[in-house]
Amino acid sequence: MPVSTNTGRGNSKARAEEIVARCKRLARFSEDTTGTRRTFLSAPMRDCHREIASWLATAGAAVRVDAVGNLCGLYPGTEANAPRLLIGSHLDTVPNAGAYDGVLGVVLGVGLLEALERRKLPFAIEVLGFSEEEGVRFGTPFIGSRALVGRVDQELLNRHDANGVSVRAAIASFGLDASDMPQAIVKEDTLGYLEFHIEQGPVLESMALPLAAVETIAAQNRMEFIFSGHANHAGTTPMHLRRDAVAGAAEWITAVEHAAQTTPGLVATVGQIEAKPGAVNVIAASARVSLDVRHGSDEICQRSTDVFIGFAEEIASRRELGLTRNELLHQRAVRMDPFLVDQIEKAIESSGCHSHRMVSGAGHDAMIVSDKVPSAMIFLRSPGGISHDPAESVNLQDVEKALECGLHLLDQLAQCPEFLKRMCRA
Amino acid sequence: MPVSTNTGRGNSKARAEEIVARCKRLARFSEDTTGTRRTFLSAPMRDCHREIASWLATAGAAVRVDAVGNLCGLYPGTEANAPRLLIGSHLDTVPNAGAYDGVLGVVLGVGLLEALERRKLPFAIEVLGFSEEEGVRFGTPFIGSRALVGRVDQELLNRHDANGVSVRAAIASFGLDASDMPQAIVKEDTLGYLEFHIEQGPVLESMALPLAAVETIAAQNRMEFIFSGHANHAGTTPMHLRRDAVAGAAEWITAVEHAAQTTPGLVATVGQIEAKPGAVNVIAASARVSLDVRHGSDEICQRSTDVFIGFAEEIASRRELGLTRNELLHQRAVRMDPFLVDQIEKAIESSGCHSHRMVSGAGHDAMIVSDKVPSAMIFLRSPGGISHDPAESVNLQDVEKALECGLHLLDQLAQCPEFLKRMCRA
Repeated sequence: MPVSTNTGRGNSKARAEEIVARCKRLARFSEDTTGTRRTFLSAPMRDCHREIASWLATAGAAVRVDAVGNLCGLYPGTEANAPRLLIGSHLDTVPNAGAYDGVLGVVLGVGLLEALERRKLPFAIEVLGFSEEEGVRFGTPFIGSRALVGRVDQELLNRHDANGVSVRAAIASFGLDASDMPQAIVKEDTLGYLEFHIEQGPVLESMALPLAAVETIAAQNRMEFIFSGHANHAGTTPMHLRRDAVAGAAEWITAVEHAAQTTPGLVATVGQIEAKPGAVNVIAASARVSLDVRHGSDEICQRSTDVFIGFAEEIASRRELGLTRNELLHQRAVRMDPFLVDQIEKAIESSGCHSHRMVSGAGHDAMIVSDKVPSAMIFLRSPGGISHDPAESVNLQDVEKALECGLHLLDQLAQCPEFLKRMCRA
Repeated sequence: MPVSTNTGRGNSKARAEEIVARCKRLARFSEDTTGTRRTFLSAPMRDCHREIASWLATAGAAVRVDAVGNLCGLYPGTEANAPRLLIGSHLDTVPNAGAYDGVLGVVLGVGLLEALERRKLPFAIEVLGFSEEEGVRFGTPFIGSRALVGRVDQELLNRHDANGVSVRAAIASFGLDASDMPQAIVKEDTLGYLEFHIEQGPVLESMALPLAAVETIAAQNRMEFIFSGHANHAGTTPMHLRRDAVAGAAEWITAVEHAAQTTPGLVATVGQIEAKPGAVNVIAASARVSLDVRHGSDEICQRSTDVFIGFAEEIASRRELGLTRNELLHQRAVRMDPFLVDQIEKAIESSGCHSHRMVSGAGHDAMIVSDKVPSAMIFLRSPGGISHDPAESVNLQDVEKALECGLHLLDQLAQCPEFLKRMCRA
């Protein structure tokens, strides 16, 4: 029977309500009493696992926790040796977090298993709750999904948190064994990875759309620039004899913003600026500014970054300022699997929504997993674009649409022989 | 005999060398071992007094210290009841100071008495070394010169320094009595106040001039502006959906700089800028910027400040940013005494220099004293425009010219019946 019979209006609305209620319940498992903070392998992560494991088991999945603390619930396929489809996101949070970033993707995965009502598909479904994505505890993001692609190395295991605890020791404290790490790597029979995630931005809201297919995770360059001039008395130094580092930085920020506004799809941000000596009556001797540039295309991201460097050089030269610059991050764009993106678009339309493809400006586990497994993401509209904040929310109707879309997607994939013949690059 | 016979080249050069050597010697009287720091009524101020007092006494002046710690050396006139001319500057310093800011004006005053070689003029000359101008110890500047105009009130006496010591207690610790404060007020027979001071800016150097007459001490407005937008993810928020506080502040800084550059005599400075939350990957929710505006004309200073406020309002409105602003300081311009400014110009020319009138962008004791006494200032070129720094310096030839100029000025004033008839507003 087609999946759609399981997604009648009343049924899927109740499931969406349960998904939102579960996200809110999980948000109470926190290291802080005043808000949600659940970092890698912390005590509340264990409570979170226990809760989700009980839902998974009830839905018919076999639950395990891998060597890096990822919660894995395997819902069997029609055959014992059926290939598997991964559906997941992360369970860790930033400090003072909302209830949906990451968590919603895991809970939606559980909801999809429940909606199958023990009906088996030609592939197994493994719901994954990654132990670490935000990078809060060890300053390194994506530790959970790195384990799936074999990128948790000795150097990473030896890193220490603020209390001097290593990743390896944290793993042992959680009752796991880092030497089992190779078993966390995805199996060859893995067909794909799907991640539902809140958009964490305002685009879908501005377009009045509940869902979108992510086609690319943006390339990202992070840099710092230091303009250096001469500290002088604000009262005694005429304008034409100044070498004002803040004025130079301000001109550059304005130029960067203008260029980003006129380059489709580009975002460029100066989030940090520090002036020294930083006195009301002293012309600034130096101004340090950060730059974050992102675009779906590696080429445009790098070309734009080069243009911004050129702006800084021209401004510094004209104003007789010194200029130093440092690259902090250089990350290439990651394309989602075109077949899965097409299938997601089709499923979004089957759910009665207008389909939209977009670039994710933020990094996600799918970016890491795609290294070995064909991966794709479905974004849910973020009311107000708000995330990483207790005010983070989702619309109940959007969750319902995501659930419908997910079920259509499973149905499509189950009926697609070429998908079932895929193998991952593990 | 005309004064000029005392200023033969060899003689004035030796006196200038002595003046520079004395400034350097006084710079060693410091609270810090690593640099010069001599705050209000500190122990090294006593050493400084002792040294200068000995020079004054040798030159024929009667030395006293007034109730606020100003060092006063009275060199008598031809008559016992001759009116007096004040020549002074301040003896306190900023932390990590140079050797000339303030001190040079006092030491030059002593040098002028010495150059008179006991010759008496129709007026007495009181050389003043103000105890406090920089505002370092109590956060309130000009305490020394305030005492001369009766502006050391109970509220000021009760202020505390970082160690909880009040101004009153500091005065007592120095062996003085705050209740004698009324006797520090200038006498009615005071004809004028002259202050030699390093320019602390680059103007004279850029014009290749050693000296200038200050005609006005600039009006000054200090404000802070806080632009407030919305903190959002730097990767997921398209440019057109941002409310970026740093971008708004940067546009405003550029507009302020441009307007200041195109308004003759105006200086406008943004020396402080702080972005919050201040993360590389977060669009700034707020940007706090300082503004310091100065001009010789009250009207232009205020009109320009209003224009800058207008810029901020227009930018905030267009960008949908919040804007709050606070006035931190509103100080009117202080005109120097026109008669004395004319006389200084004449004396500069008599010394063989091109005369130049300028606005002082910095506040000085003359600004306070002029409240009761016709006041004027002579600026000496500051090499590199450098001040408030150990690299602060003067050219020996400029000191020689200042000494010559001072002697010409004394000569002119001594021969000017209308000057001798002046009385101060005490």
